[in-house]
Amino acid sequence: MGSAHSIAALLQEGPRVLNVGVRSFTEALAAAGASYLHVEWQPPAQGDPELSRLVAMLADDREPGSLGARMREANDEALRRILAADPVWEDVRPAREIWPEMDDGLLLHAGPPIHWEHMCGPMQGAVIGAILLEGWASDEEGARALAASDRIRFSPCHHHGAVGPMAGLVSPSMPMFVVRNTAAGNLAYSSLNEGLGKVLRYGAFGPEVIARLRWMCDTLGPALQTAIRQLGGVQLKPMIAQALQMGDEAHNRHMAGTSLLFRALAPALVRALDDRERVAAVLDFITANNYFFLNLAMAACKAMMDAGHGIPCSSIVTTMARNGVEFGIRVSGTGDRWFTGPAAIPEGVFLPGFSAEDAAGDIGDSAITETAGLGGFAMGGAPAVVKVVGGTPEDAVAFTTMMYSITWTRNPNWTLPALSFAGTPTGIDVRKVVDSNLLPLINTGIAHKQAGIGQVGAGLVRPPMVCFTEALRALADAVLGGQCT
Amino acid sequence: MGSAHSIAALLQEGPRVLNVGVRSFTEALAAAGASYLHVEWQPPAQGDPELSRLVAMLADDREPGSLGARMREANDEALRRILAADPVWEDVRPAREIWPEMDDGLLLHAGPPIHWEHMCGPMQGAVIGAILLEGWASDEEGARALAASDRIRFSPCHHHGAVGPMAGLVSPSMPMFVVRNTAAGNLAYSSLNEGLGKVLRYGAFGPEVIARLRWMCDTLGPALQTAIRQLGGVQLKPMIAQALQMGDEAHNRHMAGTSLLFRALAPALVRALDDRERVAAVLDFITANNYFFLNLAMAACKAMMDAGHGIPCSSIVTTMARNGVEFGIRVSGTGDRWFTGPAAIPEGVFLPGFSAEDAAGDIGDSAITETAGLGGFAMGGAPAVVKVVGGTPEDAVAFTTMMYSITWTRNPNWTLPALSFAGTPTGIDVRKVVDSNLLPLINTGIAHKQAGIGQVGAGLVRPPMVCFTEALRALADAVLGGQCT
Repeated sequence: MGSAHSIAALLQEGPRVLNVGVRSFTEALAAAGASYLHVEWQPPAQGDPELSRLVAMLADDREPGSLGARMREANDEALRRILAADPVWEDVRPAREIWPEMDDGLLLHAGPPIHWEHMCGPMQGAVIGAILLEGWASDEEGARALAASDRIRFSPCHHHGAVGPMAGLVSPSMPMFVVRNTAAGNLAYSSLNEGLGKVLRYGAFGPEVIARLRWMCDTLGPALQTAIRQLGGVQLKPMIAQALQMGDEAHNRHMAGTSLLFRALAPALVRALDDRERVAAVLDFITANNYFFLNLAMAACKAMMDAGHGIPCSSIVTTMARNGVEFGIRVSGTGDRWFTGPAAIPEGVFLPGFSAEDAAGDIGDSAITETAGLGGFAMGGAPAVVKVVGGTPEDAVAFTTMMYSITWTRNPNWTLPALSFAGTPTGIDVRKVVDSNLLPLINTGIAHKQAGIGQVGAGLVRPPMVCFTEALRALADAVLGGQCT
Repeated sequence: MGSAHSIAALLQEGPRVLNVGVRSFTEALAAAGASYLHVEWQPPAQGDPELSRLVAMLADDREPGSLGARMREANDEALRRILAADPVWEDVRPAREIWPEMDDGLLLHAGPPIHWEHMCGPMQGAVIGAILLEGWASDEEGARALAASDRIRFSPCHHHGAVGPMAGLVSPSMPMFVVRNTAAGNLAYSSLNEGLGKVLRYGAFGPEVIARLRWMCDTLGPALQTAIRQLGGVQLKPMIAQALQMGDEAHNRHMAGTSLLFRALAPALVRALDDRERVAAVLDFITANNYFFLNLAMAACKAMMDAGHGIPCSSIVTTMARNGVEFGIRVSGTGDRWFTGPAAIPEGVFLPGFSAEDAAGDIGDSAITETAGLGGFAMGGAPAVVKVVGGTPEDAVAFTTMMYSITWTRNPNWTLPALSFAGTPTGIDVRKVVDSNLLPLINTGIAHKQAGIGQVGAGLVRPPMVCFTEALRALADAVLGGQCT
């Protein structure tokens, strides 16, 4: 009956086509006016048989005691620790107090390890600015010579429990946010946000950039230190939760987070400091910069993700970071090893006078927000962010929805009202990324590719797949080598 | 061919039913397992033939020079003035300075005119509190006796260019926000928000309520006056626009508006006032109350809607206000006449320990926000508000979408990111309400029905249809009587 009916319908109504995978097949259908439904699909692991086999084996958790079942337990534990994390901003301290070795010429930077000669323009620009700020050289030429010498050492922020947006440069004088995960005790650090436009993190190092940084070292940092110590700490998890109810996605939209932080800080600053004009200047600085909350959100995410790092057999990504040349990830079950690939050029919205031609490669530790389920992963709840990074509110919802398929769980503490209060997609599973060929979606600022210029736009970017395939292979080696038993 | 095809399809696939209007007809279909699509529809003007004829006549604007065409021009002009309004908060002044006659025993209240003996419990409670605040009586009994005597006169806030949420009580000592529509010069006023719970506007009048009001008169009002005068004013239209990008709907969600106002005020307060502890106390008070921005938003809406009031032939609603007993509206083309009907009991979410049994009738001037396209009209962009007023994010989108069908235009200055940046539905047209039987949707706080208790919840409510049918009849009388010629 059903079959006869279908054939009759086919004769009467003409064929309807379900096209799976290769989208170009639909072009002929469209040209012929035929109706069709296209379903996106790619073979697992981009068709690589060995990887497909690895994914299938590692993902099969049905058999108790199997590798897959042990990885499930490890991932559950990683996510338990990540979601239990309670990041509290508790202090501001100069970098040299946290890492005394910095005064010997150590500079921290964003992303995986890189040397001066391989750095992209904006990171070199930020290095020059940091050297000028520290007074280690008096001009660009001197700074470049010093940076190329063995008197300066470079190390990723992530190797020191820290994160920095864009170039992520940290030099010894800079004030750092200190965030403690009070659930597990681990600490995370980030620099303070300078604002937008011509700023160090985007590679600018002109006199106004250095003057602003000096004011941040001399005035902002000490003021915030006094205030936060009197306040006894600010819980960042509920503040981010509230910001998500207010249209932030906590990577490129911080209108709400900055506002909520400002509300917490202002009375404390007033009570802590005698000098009215200094209080007013600090308040003016914060309220003029709707990215001020970014760096605290990043430190909160770093404190969370570090809590879930280093669990044998876990396939959860705990770091995504870029240095402008390479994109690197680290995975809970493979420890501190980086898996890197070439950084892409973000696609997005450019400031007047700039275009994709001017864009540097993807850069910054700020993808720690996506690693923790925010930013590109939470865009569905933050439709207004598309005005900054491009796309439509419908795209933003689609992005968040897609990220559920590569993540381990939904964060019950961080919900998205526009998605019926669904929790943010949290805990990128390298197996799911390789299996689905679906890469994490990151929204990001875009720096000019040359040193000294600054921000040129904001947009969207994805990591290279090789980070995930290499991580999966390493994870397979570890678990097959007995790590899980 | 098409017909033969349809008949063949009918024989093969069975009937499909489109049901219009009476939903109960679908029950038999559902019971029989038939597929159907139900379309909500009611005959215009609830089936009243005379009103239907009036609506049809007044709404027909095809003929140049017809009444309908002139009403269209009038409504265009009303909306032009409303959308051009530029409400700026420019001062805080005690009510007695604005209305010197108040010291002779005049009290202002929310909604259309009402006398003491007819007032609902929470409004009587607020009157008692206001009399205690002014020292006109020393206890509840004395206050009740005074309120019932001819030594106290009552007048609607709206008769004085003012608005007040819930009971809306204004007594001479109270500080008032002064908002100027700088586009047309008209002024609007509102009281200052006390916070939630046991507060005067919800009918509470205990010692803590009076003490808080006294602090607002003595400390908060003068501090804000000094700060706003030094600041030279705060533009409220862009601030509300930004709050709408941040998940406020600007009636029962003011997390963002309060935050943005706080950011504007804090540096000004610090610079304006010597006394640090006083500044900190004022900042603490504002940041502890996420409804602080409500009253300023109401004054902004009042300044906007007054700009569009009094235009002959315009069918745009310029006031919706409730006194707890009656709901009243005023229409641009019918001047200062109120069209009233019985206030409904809001449906919503009750605070622990309370239920619908405890609820007072719909009360407050805060529906000026819906009148200006905010609140219930903008809920689609503020999904988190459903946690306060009930329903789901999907409902909230549906509410906003429905309101487009009874409003004249979309406000290009106030957009809703979640609805692809559509402008808020603005300018309720009494003809459209009567024609569609679709009433404006208002979200609102709910007061306890007895004096002295306070807030019991928040929810949704609609005006009685009679306000709109009577307004339409009066408008028809006016335009048929030659007002438009």
